Amino acid sequence: MQTTASAPDALSTLFVTTRDRTGALAAPLSDADATVQSMPDASPAKWHLAHTTWFFETFVLRDHVPGYRPFDAAWHFLFNSYYEGEGARHARPQRGMLTRPALDAIMAYRQAVDAAVSEALPMLDAGACALVEIGCHHEAQHQELLLTDILHLFSLNPLAPAYRPCAGPRVAAVPGPPAWITGPEGLCDIGHAVADFGFDCETPRHQVYLAPYALADRLVTNAEWQAFVGDGGYRTPEHWLSDGWAWVRQEAIEAPLYWRGDHAFGLDGLQPIDPAAPVMHVSFYEADAFARWANARLPTEHEWETAAADARIGAMFGQVWQWTGSAYLPYPGYRAAPGAVGEYNGKFMSGQMVLRGSSHVTPADTRRATTRNFFPPTARWQFSGLRLARDL
Amino acid sequence: MQTTASAPDALSTLFVTTRDRTGALAAPLSDADATVQSMPDASPAKWHLAHTTWFFETFVLRDHVPGYRPFDAAWHFLFNSYYEGEGARHARPQRGMLTRPALDAIMAYRQAVDAAVSEALPMLDAGACALVEIGCHHEAQHQELLLTDILHLFSLNPLAPAYRPCAGPRVAAVPGPPAWITGPEGLCDIGHAVADFGFDCETPRHQVYLAPYALADRLVTNAEWQAFVGDGGYRTPEHWLSDGWAWVRQEAIEAPLYWRGDHAFGLDGLQPIDPAAPVMHVSFYEADAFARWANARLPTEHEWETAAADARIGAMFGQVWQWTGSAYLPYPGYRAAPGAVGEYNGKFMSGQMVLRGSSHVTPADTRRATTRNFFPPTARWQFSGLRLARDL
Amino acid sequence: MQTTASAPDALSTLFVTTRDRTGALAAPLSDADATVQSMPDASPAKWHLAHTTWFFETFVLRDHVPGYRPFDAAWHFLFNSYYEGEGARHARPQRGMLTRPALDAIMAYRQAVDAAVSEALPMLDAGACALVEIGCHHEAQHQELLLTDILHLFSLNPLAPAYRPCAGPRVAAVPGPPAWITGPEGLCDIGHAVADFGFDCETPRHQVYLAPYALADRLVTNAEWQAFVGDGGYRTPEHWLSDGWAWVRQEAIEAPLYWRGDHAFGLDGLQPIDPAAPVMHVSFYEADAFARWANARLPTEHEWETAAADARIGAMFGQVWQWTGSAYLPYPGYRAAPGAVGEYNGKFMSGQMVLRGSSHVTPADTRRATTRNFFPPTARWQFSGLRLARDL
Amino acid sequence: MQTTASAPDALSTLFVTTRDRTGALAAPLSDADATVQSMPDASPAKWHLAHTTWFFETFVLRDHVPGYRPFDAAWHFLFNSYYEGEGARHARPQRGMLTRPALDAIMAYRQAVDAAVSEALPMLDAGACALVEIGCHHEAQHQELLLTDILHLFSLNPLAPAYRPCAGPRVAAVPGPPAWITGPEGLCDIGHAVADFGFDCETPRHQVYLAPYALADRLVTNAEWQAFVGDGGYRTPEHWLSDGWAWVRQEAIEAPLYWRGDHAFGLDGLQPIDPAAPVMHVSFYEADAFARWANARLPTEHEWETAAADARIGAMFGQVWQWTGSAYLPYPGYRAAPGAVGEYNGKFMSGQMVLRGSSHVTPADTRRATTRNFFPPTARWQFSGLRLARDL
Repeated sequence: MQTTASAPDALSTLFVTTRDRTGALAAPLSDADATVQSMPDASPAKWHLAHTTWFFETFVLRDHVPGYRPFDAAWHFLFNSYYEGEGARHARPQRGMLTRPALDAIMAYRQAVDAAVSEALPMLDAGACALVEIGCHHEAQHQELLLTDILHLFSLNPLAPAYRPCAGPRVAAVPGPPAWITGPEGLCDIGHAVADFGFDCETPRHQVYLAPYALADRLVTNAEWQAFVGDGGYRTPEHWLSDGWAWVRQEAIEAPLYWRGDHAFGLDGLQPIDPAAPVMHVSFYEADAFARWANARLPTEHEWETAAADARIGAMFGQVWQWTGSAYLPYPGYRAAPGAVGEYNGKFMSGQMVLRGSSHVTPADTRRATTRNFFPPTARWQFSGLRLARDL
Repeated sequence: MQTTASAPDALSTLFVTTRDRTGALAAPLSDADATVQSMPDASPAKWHLAHTTWFFETFVLRDHVPGYRPFDAAWHFLFNSYYEGEGARHARPQRGMLTRPALDAIMAYRQAVDAAVSEALPMLDAGACALVEIGCHHEAQHQELLLTDILHLFSLNPLAPAYRPCAGPRVAAVPGPPAWITGPEGLCDIGHAVADFGFDCETPRHQVYLAPYALADRLVTNAEWQAFVGDGGYRTPEHWLSDGWAWVRQEAIEAPLYWRGDHAFGLDGLQPIDPAAPVMHVSFYEADAFARWANARLPTEHEWETAAADARIGAMFGQVWQWTGSAYLPYPGYRAAPGAVGEYNGKFMSGQMVLRGSSHVTPADTRRATTRNFFPPTARWQFSGLRLARDL
Repeated sequence: MQTTASAPDALSTLFVTTRDRTGALAAPLSDADATVQSMPDASPAKWHLAHTTWFFETFVLRDHVPGYRPFDAAWHFLFNSYYEGEGARHARPQRGMLTRPALDAIMAYRQAVDAAVSEALPMLDAGACALVEIGCHHEAQHQELLLTDILHLFSLNPLAPAYRPCAGPRVAAVPGPPAWITGPEGLCDIGHAVADFGFDCETPRHQVYLAPYALADRLVTNAEWQAFVGDGGYRTPEHWLSDGWAWVRQEAIEAPLYWRGDHAFGLDGLQPIDPAAPVMHVSFYEADAFARWANARLPTEHEWETAAADARIGAMFGQVWQWTGSAYLPYPGYRAAPGAVGEYNGKFMSGQMVLRGSSHVTPADTRRATTRNFFPPTARWQFSGLRLARDL
Repeated sequence: MQTTASAPDALSTLFVTTRDRTGALAAPLSDADATVQSMPDASPAKWHLAHTTWFFETFVLRDHVPGYRPFDAAWHFLFNSYYEGEGARHARPQRGMLTRPALDAIMAYRQAVDAAVSEALPMLDAGACALVEIGCHHEAQHQELLLTDILHLFSLNPLAPAYRPCAGPRVAAVPGPPAWITGPEGLCDIGHAVADFGFDCETPRHQVYLAPYALADRLVTNAEWQAFVGDGGYRTPEHWLSDGWAWVRQEAIEAPLYWRGDHAFGLDGLQPIDPAAPVMHVSFYEADAFARWANARLPTEHEWETAAADARIGAMFGQVWQWTGSAYLPYPGYRAAPGAVGEYNGKFMSGQMVLRGSSHVTPADTRRATTRNFFPPTARWQFSGLRLARDL
């Protein structure tokens, strides 16, 4: 991965800020809330708390701090996610069985590792510092996942508990039709430049040729999605990719994941659907079908990235992740980082679609135009929406 | 169901004793321990605690105490188990999603219902008193299930937590070969007599003709099971029922559920296998295959019940439930009780085998020779073992 | 198995008659009809034709005729059904992949084995003769299965092809309410007596004590089943066993297997439902629910067998197999026959319910009051109906 | 789709040639061979024969020939593949249930439609002629599928029947290491040009920017694949995409689909593996892992197409389809054709990877550099192999 030549102080600040923010996210959760796994794709909050800590303990403390003794040797097996290079690990669908260690034990683990990293930070070499920086960005991703996973868990509780009051993006008034903003045409530079942090999958920076296109200046709204539903959008095969149509019928999909009639379930519990707000919790298949219904298409990730600098286009960041029509594949000349950290991105480049931008729960300091988020085309529990594009 | 004409004091004592015992069983559990559901067949401890309370609240307080107001109206949906007559309910495989209400809220629910029942008890008519008595026996069954389910949950945790120290049945020395005790032959009376409590499935008392047979005077031991394993018992199709053989291969079964090499996981954690102790956590298919390997067979439930009074036969109660060769079917002339309580037993009379006796975690005051426990032939997470029988 | 001391001529006649009848059943089938397997529970007609031949080739010719050379050595693997003692075999769900050998090759196999058996028959000892007799009864069972499986296959063809004209049981007029015939009470003899042929599962003959009961003098009709449907029988959980109710909802069951509106698909194609005819192609769960709806119950297999001699009770044989409330379990003192033939019945004594009587496609010369047919409680593709019983 | 302005004679020749070739491919098959469906992804030969005929009958005769009467009205439902615009259709996994109509009836259908099309051809307008041309290319694809599907069916038969003698690609001697041929760099034109036939998914022609790369001048051989196997390629997670690794373990994949020890099953039956021949019947996941093991990568479809004109690169066509690293997605500006024919390609642009080139069973007159074949990343039953690429 490309990392910044962070000054030690900046890195320390990043580390402390990041770690504290995770702790704050966990504050409203009980031990039970933090333990349960609501589906194989989701992880318990306790697991997010521990795994992000394991990352620092393993790749920084164990590998770069002489004499470091692990907090609990048995936990290495428990909190590895998918790093084959780090050996056997607890099976993902069984993460919710870990009622022990308890939440307070996990928080003690966090504190111990935080102290050890903070103490070690001044002595770390550049390579280890880069790992701390990656760990912070890794943790920022898990912060969002912690919230998506808690939302999913709470959505399965008939009591509809709220994680916190007033959580979603709010928009003043139902907007009129979008304006279509023409993007740059021809050869464009895509991907992460060296100067600041970026994940390996965003590299190398390379050229792409873009045909003429335009992007909508705003996101698709709940009101527009209600029109799609009302027009039989979920019952008309012509709008859908073949796999998407099979999925809609198999799963009896009729609306975004958390819609309940004219209400939607969110981090603030069950609330009336806000017609002006961007639609959320739709899959790629739904986004793609909506776009076809609307005589438009999803943007490619290249179009999205190239247009991101255009000040006329709103809500690229901070509301919802935006599905693109691009499969998550390696950039030309891509090389995975060496070692176990190299498993971070590359091995997932199959069967997933790219989302761009960021959501209202993405930490603001990690928003970058080159970020490539990715999920399978059926995933709905993320804060995922869409923006339309058109050929010119 | 047949119930005793319990004196009010005796009923009150039964109620208080039963309820307190459940509370004591929950004491070692954290909120998280009590929340997680380890498999669809198991229920969270919190659910056992709440459902047994729901039973009293619904069938006693709601139906027989004028003016009773439910503790929380939304919980009726959450804690109904399978009573179709009581309307819609939370799906069984989703019981583990209920991180809220928390364990302490459930305990408050228990206290409130306990107080209301205790206050109402002196005024209840005979029918309502019978429901209190049934509720206590129902709760005694859930006490055992709470432990079987916690054991299963803890068994999936690589940290192997112990529920409590020294939990299993202990036997002094490895016994010699069993003695074969001839049982009564010809017409025998089977089933529950009117004088004391019994579930409806144990009635009516009726006659059965028994051919000559003998029962082993003791249970099959771990040492004997190790011999079966060592002799290739799990790899020899001749010993197995066809469905059992398919199950063994499909699930790669090689030993009792909680054996880990020469240790076994139990309520007291991971302990060396005690060769003298009765084997536990085997399915009907395994028990049946073992019996065929041993040139014997499982007893029928009629043989078991008829022989239960014979003082020469040991360990009928208090160690492990004993698989029989009898399918769980209605007795001649069986009638389910009217109303929702009538769903308690009769509708499960399909696809299950009868176990007799009781285990070391069965409340001692509920042990009866006529009790018919029942589970599918693949169930292993109960405290289930076996005793051999032979034709004469 | 108990077998008759058949005179050689009688055995030869039985053999030739049985084998010819199978050939006649296959006559209306094309190579393709005879090859396809419509579901894992069913087998291709070609497989029935070959497997019944394999039985004689293996257990008679190979084992009892010195110097016999197999028709094709590779076919032993293909046409073993489930005999573990005979080694590895073609996986059951893959039987429909065998487009080769072709139907005419299978018929040539039949002729070759027929000739070899007929030639050997005069020299065979009593044990081998018993195997020939068993083979004929085995083949009679496969004759019925060949028809049930072809019916299932044709039912999946939108063209609704008829196997043959006018195939089902026909009854003159819709009958009035059934008469209830009181059966013998007290100790009764059950099971096969030595004098004629019977399968091992029908032995040993033994005593059973029967409580007072009555049987309906006729089968349940299509008209009665239509009343059950019209009364919401498939939507009322109170009528159903718990597993049956789950099955009905999971599979969206609303009528007998081959009903299509007011028509039913049968061996004679799609025909109007005959209200006077016995209902067919219902599962045990459906039969049991119907009986509960009708304030009755299914008879036990003991009641059925004991009452079978009563001339007042009609249609015990020759119309539909009749579900009983008895699980398929070993009789007291049951011993499986030695050798691979001993796998014929005993190992299937798990998870199945007994049907008694015979259907309109059962070879008439194999109808016996002691016959125990058995299928899982969800099986519907057999010619299965029901007769009601009541406690007195 | 882009189609040629074919002269009537040329179109007639194409039609007759194509239809006759299909008939010739079916000649070695029995009715049973042509009926069975070996897996949901495959179709029976009879279905290929009928569906390709249905295509002409529906889109040409029904829509463009006044007064045409369908051969059999019921068959429209049976032989529609996936055209939602053409209404309900027989479920794909049930195609193997159609033992009727028989193979000779299907051949009669083919002859009747052939005659009607040939008669109508001189009167058809350009739009209808374009549909005839598409139908021929559609049928050419089904010719290959007919063979892949028969091969899969025969591979499941323990008798290992051969479809025909000597079928696979043969190469003289085991080649040395491949030469690496540098491809054109910078802006390239990709996609189908107007002058001749192409499917809609190959359009529009557009510009793509290519970074420096090289392609191997030959295909990966069986000998090289054996080295990969011998080096533990299937047991080393580092080589694999995450989904691919899960698939390999789940399915216990250890070699190409039809390898049996040192033999491989093919259209000519079981034959020794030819070390010099290109490896076949590998999935995208396997091809991708092999490339990583070999310190190379798969080419993109753009690289492949751009390099196809380079005479130094061998075996681009006529041996095996070659997996690329490109997901099957719409080209910039892609528009699906209107009407039901527009469902031909576009709706499958999800979850599939592109293969380029052609195999030894692809009709030679349909080989084009712009052809985009596509299958899911686990598909192995096609004649799929690979060629390596490298970044420069």
